[in-house]
Amino acid sequence: MLIDVHTHVVPEKLPDFAGRAGGSRWPAMDPIDACNSRIMVGGKNFRTVTDQCWSASRRLEDMRGEGVERQVLSPMPNLFSYWGEPGDTLDFSRFINGEIAAMVRAEPERFYGLGQVPLQDPDLAARELAPIRQMGLLGVEIGTNVNGDSLADPKFLPFFIEAEKLGMPIFIHAQHPGGTDRFTGPRLLENLIGFPQENTLAAATLISGGVIERCPGLRVLFSHGGGGFALVLPRLDQGWRTMEQFLPRLPSSYVDNFYFDTLFFDAPGIGLLIEKFGARRVMVGSDYPFVIREGPPGKHLAELAGLDDSAIQAIHAGSCLEFLGL
Amino acid sequence: MLIDVHTHVVPEKLPDFAGRAGGSRWPAMDPIDACNSRIMVGGKNFRTVTDQCWSASRRLEDMRGEGVERQVLSPMPNLFSYWGEPGDTLDFSRFINGEIAAMVRAEPERFYGLGQVPLQDPDLAARELAPIRQMGLLGVEIGTNVNGDSLADPKFLPFFIEAEKLGMPIFIHAQHPGGTDRFTGPRLLENLIGFPQENTLAAATLISGGVIERCPGLRVLFSHGGGGFALVLPRLDQGWRTMEQFLPRLPSSYVDNFYFDTLFFDAPGIGLLIEKFGARRVMVGSDYPFVIREGPPGKHLAELAGLDDSAIQAIHAGSCLEFLGL
Repeated sequence: MLIDVHTHVVPEKLPDFAGRAGGSRWPAMDPIDACNSRIMVGGKNFRTVTDQCWSASRRLEDMRGEGVERQVLSPMPNLFSYWGEPGDTLDFSRFINGEIAAMVRAEPERFYGLGQVPLQDPDLAARELAPIRQMGLLGVEIGTNVNGDSLADPKFLPFFIEAEKLGMPIFIHAQHPGGTDRFTGPRLLENLIGFPQENTLAAATLISGGVIERCPGLRVLFSHGGGGFALVLPRLDQGWRTMEQFLPRLPSSYVDNFYFDTLFFDAPGIGLLIEKFGARRVMVGSDYPFVIREGPPGKHLAELAGLDDSAIQAIHAGSCLEFLGL
Repeated sequence: MLIDVHTHVVPEKLPDFAGRAGGSRWPAMDPIDACNSRIMVGGKNFRTVTDQCWSASRRLEDMRGEGVERQVLSPMPNLFSYWGEPGDTLDFSRFINGEIAAMVRAEPERFYGLGQVPLQDPDLAARELAPIRQMGLLGVEIGTNVNGDSLADPKFLPFFIEAEKLGMPIFIHAQHPGGTDRFTGPRLLENLIGFPQENTLAAATLISGGVIERCPGLRVLFSHGGGGFALVLPRLDQGWRTMEQFLPRLPSSYVDNFYFDTLFFDAPGIGLLIEKFGARRVMVGSDYPFVIREGPPGKHLAELAGLDDSAIQAIHAGSCLEFLGL
């Protein structure tokens, strides 16, 4: 059995929020034909997508073709809309979550679902967690920053405390990187360089900012293999050892509930994750159905020599089930 | 033989630049006793250092004690002073370079030297390269950004072209990271998280910004193992393959003259560098004599199992000699 933890959904139709604050900033679908649609954001085509984004049957067909037994469905991160009025983002999120929950209900053996929350209002986001679970979703996906604010900002702590209390897993997905003025090259670098940098920063600061010290049971999955985090963590330890004990314990002692997908597009990076964190903290994730995705899911994992069966089974399914709390 | 490529010098005395533009921003030494000094920047103690920073005999004693045959000397990056008037930074750099050159002349079998340049004025910096070589220094150390500007900004190209023409190696050292408002935790994170992020960005954008396309023979060494670069490069390739061919060739085809030190404080990270780039692109670097350094140099490399003698010899000395052009 292979589970793909990193797959995104965009509903075929989005609610008309043009009359709400923000107007055309709300994502809207502009269909090209029955199978393709432009996602319009701020009057511009943000991305052209196919019905793989919303059609369960198209997804199941692809899954059969690529040997994927189950997918974890999560919103395309640009749907998060943290910039909106919290109440509006809540309404928008409930629509998205309802669409994902409906896909899960229709194919409960093939799909698990994660929702989204209006994290710009941490208390509102915390209160929405229990209803999200009641809808049949297992956890939530959030961005690596919220309108440029660090996830380790103390204002987000009530949200993480509630997620820990409910035992709901959090998928932390790179979004809207900072420092783009230094990304010399095409706009695409915001994704190619910016996303790994975002993941690195989110993982490192959840530790350094004391979030994990406060919420040791919180299960968090980092997209894109956690970016460069596996290479940065030993430096955090060395700084703690030699310069300043900025936490009660060594930084690397806080990663027991950190999980990482395999989305490096490269076998050696996956090997490093396994070596540093163990196979039961690593799981296949492909970014299906977007163009940059790994296809078939698990392709680069399969290139790794020397893994035993139990490690492969963990990365294919067991780690993901543990992360999801199943 | 073991060469430590990543060691820094601070002269015992610095020239009095208080009367120049910038005033107290110029680093100044405030001695505590014969063996210790505060480095004052902007009227504050930036760092307290020992005579290991300037005393050849102290360094040679440490090298004997730790099995280091040679050190590559480079300025402490905070001496770069890119914020200054270019002519002033040139004068300051010439003083620093002179001090390092004197140490090399006194112990030519034990020290190699790298200088610094006023990179805020790329033409002035380019013109200074030949004189630096004439002083007996082999190349230069520069920051990962220049007053917040990307090294891949086209304005720096004349400098890289001149360095390539002269065959002078460039050590790119992390400095003054951006995005620090998201470094939730102690000030020290600017070093612990910010430095690896800086190295990642510098290495990735020298490729994406076309610098290496223009200067394929340029030899560049990245500090701190290049940060997360080894984990980001395959994503650059995947974006190029699937989304936009933003360079004539695959991004990973531009790394033939990239070098990395081993300064991860961790064996698996070093293993990843060797696997991705080969032992002849990796060399021991310790950040001597600063508190966070790896001691003894090569400690984590020695923990790596399965390296053959030729790989170890390359990482201990051969890669560094190749980088230096010797």
